[in-house]
Amino acid sequence: MNQFKPPLSSQPPSQDRFGLRLSVPPSLPHYISPLSPIAFLLRAALIFPNKAAIIHPEKGIRFTYVEWAARCLSLAFAIKNTANWKKGDRVAIIAPNTPMILESYYGILAAGGIATPLNIRNNEREIAYVLDHSGASVILVDEEFAHLVPEQLPSNVTVIISKDTGGKDGIDSDQYESFLHTGRQEWEKAEKQEIDRWGKKGKRGWELIEAPKDENTPCCLCYTSGTTGRPKGVLTSHRGSYLAACANAFEFQLTSDSVYLWVLPAFHAAGWTFPWAVTAALGTHYIIRKVDNDLIWNALRDHGVTHYCAAPTVNIGLVNHPKAQRLPQTVRVAVAASAPTAELLQSLENLNVIPVHCYGQTENYGPFVKRYMEPSWSKLAVQDRAQLIARQGHGFLVSDEVRVIKTGKENDSIKDERDLIDVEADGQEVGEIIMRGNLAMLEYYNDKVATEKTVKHGWLHTGDLAVRHPGGEVHIRDRQKDIIISGGENISSLAVEDEIASHEAVLEGCVVARPHEKWGEVGHAFIVLKQGRKLTAEELRQYCRSRMSKFAVPGYIDFVDALPKTSTGKVQKNVLRENLRQAKL
Amino acid sequence: MNQFKPPLSSQPPSQDRFGLRLSVPPSLPHYISPLSPIAFLLRAALIFPNKAAIIHPEKGIRFTYVEWAARCLSLAFAIKNTANWKKGDRVAIIAPNTPMILESYYGILAAGGIATPLNIRNNEREIAYVLDHSGASVILVDEEFAHLVPEQLPSNVTVIISKDTGGKDGIDSDQYESFLHTGRQEWEKAEKQEIDRWGKKGKRGWELIEAPKDENTPCCLCYTSGTTGRPKGVLTSHRGSYLAACANAFEFQLTSDSVYLWVLPAFHAAGWTFPWAVTAALGTHYIIRKVDNDLIWNALRDHGVTHYCAAPTVNIGLVNHPKAQRLPQTVRVAVAASAPTAELLQSLENLNVIPVHCYGQTENYGPFVKRYMEPSWSKLAVQDRAQLIARQGHGFLVSDEVRVIKTGKENDSIKDERDLIDVEADGQEVGEIIMRGNLAMLEYYNDKVATEKTVKHGWLHTGDLAVRHPGGEVHIRDRQKDIIISGGENISSLAVEDEIASHEAVLEGCVVARPHEKWGEVGHAFIVLKQGRKLTAEELRQYCRSRMSKFAVPGYIDFVDALPKTSTGKVQKNVLRENLRQAKL
Repeated sequence: MNQFKPPLSSQPPSQDRFGLRLSVPPSLPHYISPLSPIAFLLRAALIFPNKAAIIHPEKGIRFTYVEWAARCLSLAFAIKNTANWKKGDRVAIIAPNTPMILESYYGILAAGGIATPLNIRNNEREIAYVLDHSGASVILVDEEFAHLVPEQLPSNVTVIISKDTGGKDGIDSDQYESFLHTGRQEWEKAEKQEIDRWGKKGKRGWELIEAPKDENTPCCLCYTSGTTGRPKGVLTSHRGSYLAACANAFEFQLTSDSVYLWVLPAFHAAGWTFPWAVTAALGTHYIIRKVDNDLIWNALRDHGVTHYCAAPTVNIGLVNHPKAQRLPQTVRVAVAASAPTAELLQSLENLNVIPVHCYGQTENYGPFVKRYMEPSWSKLAVQDRAQLIARQGHGFLVSDEVRVIKTGKENDSIKDERDLIDVEADGQEVGEIIMRGNLAMLEYYNDKVATEKTVKHGWLHTGDLAVRHPGGEVHIRDRQKDIIISGGENISSLAVEDEIASHEAVLEGCVVARPHEKWGEVGHAFIVLKQGRKLTAEELRQYCRSRMSKFAVPGYIDFVDALPKTSTGKVQKNVLRENLRQAKL
Repeated sequence: MNQFKPPLSSQPPSQDRFGLRLSVPPSLPHYISPLSPIAFLLRAALIFPNKAAIIHPEKGIRFTYVEWAARCLSLAFAIKNTANWKKGDRVAIIAPNTPMILESYYGILAAGGIATPLNIRNNEREIAYVLDHSGASVILVDEEFAHLVPEQLPSNVTVIISKDTGGKDGIDSDQYESFLHTGRQEWEKAEKQEIDRWGKKGKRGWELIEAPKDENTPCCLCYTSGTTGRPKGVLTSHRGSYLAACANAFEFQLTSDSVYLWVLPAFHAAGWTFPWAVTAALGTHYIIRKVDNDLIWNALRDHGVTHYCAAPTVNIGLVNHPKAQRLPQTVRVAVAASAPTAELLQSLENLNVIPVHCYGQTENYGPFVKRYMEPSWSKLAVQDRAQLIARQGHGFLVSDEVRVIKTGKENDSIKDERDLIDVEADGQEVGEIIMRGNLAMLEYYNDKVATEKTVKHGWLHTGDLAVRHPGGEVHIRDRQKDIIISGGENISSLAVEDEIASHEAVLEGCVVARPHEKWGEVGHAFIVLKQGRKLTAEELRQYCRSRMSKFAVPGYIDFVDALPKTSTGKVQKNVLRENLRQAKL
């Protein structure tokens, strides 16, 4: 690892001054700097230039902060140099956890673009849909996932394939590295023009980039398959990303001593803002391509990892690994999707790993709610503690109050904000979680209808059902009924049902979540066949595999005569779920 | 202390719902909540209602967060109820560290006013000047300092005197408490109107307060005697205060386990934003009226204090106190004004107190620069470590880069931002510290001339001279030449000279800083008498005492025949300082 020499694109300039600041739009008053997460990288490179920003052990890559700042600037100029580039254009990223995806959250933003990370677990059709919907004009793709890029693309789209070499084998063998190299040349050209014209006063390095004048400028577009059949693009802003990153750094106690292990996919909700939060805290990114428990334990034991984010399923794998041992350093793990069980909590604590239970959605920059611990809990039995920790909790620093409002009849007469009535804080009354403020997305991109369904009366409706306890903390009681959460992935049952219904032998089908030890939940499909038609579960599964992400294919398939329905003809999924529960499957 | 029962004004409402959120101006989009530090209090009251927000041991007062939220809301309504109150009005506070001054940073802001804390070490004349200049329409004054309030005040000014009882002796004997009581009545009246009209949908408690639509709305006016004779009013905003508080909470690692001891006067630069930062972190304020080493050691030893801010002089007193002992908890102390010596650093570390060296001015919300430690320093000898820590360092989280620009000749031709040229980062070239962005004040209140002198070409000029080391960190080499910093107080030598010059026997005088073991610096005056006139040092000191704050009275007075001057007639203070240095006084 010590032998690694970064290529030119990733080296600070030889001049004495790098210019580690953004230019400020001249019309802004002296007391405003637009909030933008790009600033965190420049600050880190200024304060700790020689500290490891990224360690990528599988590939023997290590970039210091000043190298990384050079690399991200090279990326920004390379993107600006693509055909017909203009501000606000989307750049898609199709990659596992690699340096490239982390630097995209700086380089694309600095180019004035919108970072559009794709879910590498999606299939070709879903990827094609998102590329088309986002209108991405540049695609950065990791070689391992290059097959996901459609063969037919509009002629103006630039595709750049990365071999994840970090340039150590020279730039010619890795398209992404030579792309960065062109960026470096562009940046040096621009610098030279400045110096020719202005001499000493010429802008250098990052000064060539102007901060967005309006901090509400969009910066990320993250697709979610959260609530309806088609993926929706969550558009977020520089301001929101900046504030969310500050909040995550604060709430998870990231410091300059922190080493953050990339277990969470960095494409998920912009990596929950951790590409920025870790850097804001001047910490180190330790990034691995795969969730490999052996690699993770090496990182925990030998590389001083202090933080990671992971769903309970991942943590179960970790505590049961042969290398598991009590760690000398305290490690904080942000756990979302579901709360750790008492058993898992105990196992983690034995290893000196402290779970922080949090909640959020792509629509609110990932986690924005956290369960705040009380000192008195340390005296409780682990079962009792686990029960208390299971509640999702309260809004973060920089978050507004998270509300739970009455639904049902009372909801029909809502005319304005005043009609949003909170449920009783009694731990009993179930309502819908709503939120607003700086951690709310801007909109669903190019989807006015979906935006208007979600943002109503000034509040973002999450669709998640919850109670509020007397302490005011939010406690989710029922996932939004159509969602199946499997291995941390949101599966839209509607989307799966649409595909199933497209099979010529199927009359109708319905998919509900079924608890699963390993994956949390898997889909259980109930199928009614057309009269006289035949179909086996395996044939249907085969059909599904060709049309959806692997994780979305129902784990269980039952053929039934009819589906339970309401008088108005809606399928009663609650009845099906209850049947499953009673059958103790 | 357990017996303390808060009065009605400081009790949460008996209704089931307090409404611990601000109303949002209806014209704002769902993704914007104006950044305002008021939000921190409401969040703390929601998450930890029954946790101690304020402990005030000398008076046996203790408010929980929900009580404190009620109290601050009562204050807001009491202020709104004063004669002719309108948004943007100034409310002066003349108080030592007490619950009142901390609550003023919430209650005044919530009333739409501008909190204007006065320096209780100023004399009557200075106080009168500031009251007049700010045009404060309400004055909140602690009984001990009531003599500072001028007898002659405009008829529309409301003066409220606090006995710092917290209402425990009933509200009639303490004007401030009965003021709060009227506020509570006003708030309940407003709530009743809402409920009469809207029923369940009626706004409650804090919902009766609307957040400022524009987050750049001024919220504090802190007078500094920093750079010229007359105090100048530093006007700061809700947005800046919010961001500065987040940064301070993060940089000093405040958490919900933190207990912050109020050693720093809360009137200094809005208490360096700690009235908000501690609450943002959900910590506890431990507040004492006087810097009493005995009280401080009790707090450190027996009340779990984890943080405080104090100049080196205060810390010297603490380490030499008979009660000094190694603490079980790590305590972080923010040290500004001057760096701790090697001896002090060692003494503090022996006690488990970790100094964090920081730098800032009232003009940038108190500290905004910090010396970031590197892990390798722990291996260095304490002398070497002290030398490294002595550098002021780099900008905080949320701060932009702190620049040091060339002064002198090159400064004369400055036409625009581009002409601001950075000094070499060589640890040698001295220049002026400039900064801009979210931690820069709005302006000097009602002082266009001073504002234009300080804010030039889009940057706030601090007047402090510094070098930048190759690591980019800022290192102050010379205080702005006219300033004497004594016991943490800025003394304008120009202001003192003006007063001295007003003595009929004095021809001219000049005051420079002289190093002082206890106070850091004291003023040393060089006086030329008018021909044939006589004056003793004691007589002149007496004259000064009647005209300025005690700390500003020169500690040393020399009568000389003439002052060293430049060819253009300017007094060469550098020569006088050099003389003092050579004389090893």
